[in-house]
Amino acid sequence: MSRPLILVTNDDGINAAGVNALADFVSEIGDVVVVAPDQPRSGQSHSITIEIPLKYQRLNRESKYPLYTCNGTPVDAVKIASHYILDRKPDLLVSGINHGSNSSVNIIYSGTVAAVLEGAMGGIPSIGFSLLDYSPFADFQPAKLYVQKIVNKVLEEGLPEGTALNVNFPYTNEKPLKGMRVCRQAKANWEEDFEIRQDPHGREYFWLKGKFQNLDGGQDTDEHALENGYVSIVPVEFDFTAHYALKQLKKWETDD
Amino acid sequence: MSRPLILVTNDDGINAAGVNALADFVSEIGDVVVVAPDQPRSGQSHSITIEIPLKYQRLNRESKYPLYTCNGTPVDAVKIASHYILDRKPDLLVSGINHGSNSSVNIIYSGTVAAVLEGAMGGIPSIGFSLLDYSPFADFQPAKLYVQKIVNKVLEEGLPEGTALNVNFPYTNEKPLKGMRVCRQAKANWEEDFEIRQDPHGREYFWLKGKFQNLDGGQDTDEHALENGYVSIVPVEFDFTAHYALKQLKKWETDD
Repeated sequence: MSRPLILVTNDDGINAAGVNALADFVSEIGDVVVVAPDQPRSGQSHSITIEIPLKYQRLNRESKYPLYTCNGTPVDAVKIASHYILDRKPDLLVSGINHGSNSSVNIIYSGTVAAVLEGAMGGIPSIGFSLLDYSPFADFQPAKLYVQKIVNKVLEEGLPEGTALNVNFPYTNEKPLKGMRVCRQAKANWEEDFEIRQDPHGREYFWLKGKFQNLDGGQDTDEHALENGYVSIVPVEFDFTAHYALKQLKKWETDD
Repeated sequence: MSRPLILVTNDDGINAAGVNALADFVSEIGDVVVVAPDQPRSGQSHSITIEIPLKYQRLNRESKYPLYTCNGTPVDAVKIASHYILDRKPDLLVSGINHGSNSSVNIIYSGTVAAVLEGAMGGIPSIGFSLLDYSPFADFQPAKLYVQKIVNKVLEEGLPEGTALNVNFPYTNEKPLKGMRVCRQAKANWEEDFEIRQDPHGREYFWLKGKFQNLDGGQDTDEHALENGYVSIVPVEFDFTAHYALKQLKKWETDD
C-alpha cells in the first residue's frame, strides 16, 4: 500500500512548536502536508472567514514536507487545503498538538477540535491532539508514541461515520503516561472572571479570564482519565441534536 | 409572578432588523435587555475574544428597553451580559432572529446558536431563532406568533438540563406557516466552491462560497419540516461525545 496522505493543521498557528512536533511524528507514518493559520487562532471555534478573502502561501523554509499558511481560521485551513492545495482527499487529518487543554467543554471553544469536526464532515478520518501545558516551550516528546499509536489505529480500522477523535495528553513532565482511556466529555463549566481595567481615557475594558470547574464525578470522563495520568480519547460528532429531548418536546408540535 | 428577565442577543449585530424584531416580540412577555455585537459576526461559531480586551457600551438611542453593544462575538456578549451588565441571571436568553438559515449542519458555524449553547452551559434556558431569508429587509412579522408561543412554552415548562433550542422559520412570504415540528438536525454538507480572483498585484485570493446539500431523506429532520412550510425546533446540546462510538473504541484502551 502506498503511504497515506496526512493533512496537518492547528489553531496556534504555523509557528507553534506543537504543530511542528505533530507533523514530525506523523511524517514517520505518511506523506505530510501542513496547512495552518498564519497566526494564533485559539478560541475561534468553528469560525469561517466570510468578510475578507482568504489567501494561502507555501513557505520558503527548509522542511521535510510542504508547509503552507493561510490567513484564516483552522476551519478555513481545512477547507482550502482539501479543495485547492491537496490534489486528492487526504487519508487522515490531524490537528494540534494544541498548547493547552481541549478536554471537557473546552472543546466548544476550540479551533483545534473544530478543524477535526470539519474534516469529519468532509468524510476525512480526523484526530485532534492537545497537551495540558500552555507553555510555548511545552515538551511534546512524551506524546509521540501515543500519537503514532492512535494514528495507526485510525488508518487501519477507520472511525465510525461522522465521528472524529478529541485526544488530550495530561501534563506529566515528571512521570510516564499510564496508558489510554476512551471517555465521554466531562460536564464542567467556566466560572467567568473578567479582569476590569481602565484605558488612558478612563474607559473600562475587560479581559476574559475564568476558572475551569469540573462538575462531573464520573470515572468514565476525560477529566478523570487526565487527572489519573492517562491519555484521554473522546469520540466526538457534529450532530448537536439532543436526541434524549426529542420525545419530551414532541408534544409542542402544532398544525395550524 | 414578576415579569421574566429576557436577555436578547444575535450574531448579525445590533443594527440588524432581526434582533430588533426579536426584542420587540419578547418585550410583550418580559423585561428585555439587548446585548449584541457592534458589528456583524456571522460564521463566528463559538469564538471568544482573548487577544484583545472587550468593551461594552449602552447605546444612547430611544428604545423601549436597554440596548448595549459589545466589541466581541455573540458568546462574548452572553458572558459579559450575564456577569456584568445584568444584575441577576436572566430567566431566558433568546438569540436572533438570524438573517439566514441555521438548520442542519449550519449550526456548527453559527454565532446565533453558539450564543444559546453558551447560555445553556450557564444554566439559562436559551432559544436561537433564524429565518431562511438572508435579506436585510426580511419580513419577520410572520414569525412573531411562533416566537411568543415557544418563549411562553419554555418559560412555563423549562427545558431538559443542558438543552437549548434551535428554531428555524421557513421562507414563506406568500403563504402562512403550517405549524411547528420538533426535529433532529438533518445530515448535510456544504459543497465548497471557492471563488478565485486576482488582486492588483497578480496574487490569487479566495472567497468562500458553497452549495448546501441535504443528504438526509428522513422525515423527522429540520430540513424536511422547513421544506414543507413548518417551523423547525431542534433541541441541541453542548456534549459533543459520540456516545454510540464509545463501545466500539473501548478496545483501544491500554495500560502501559
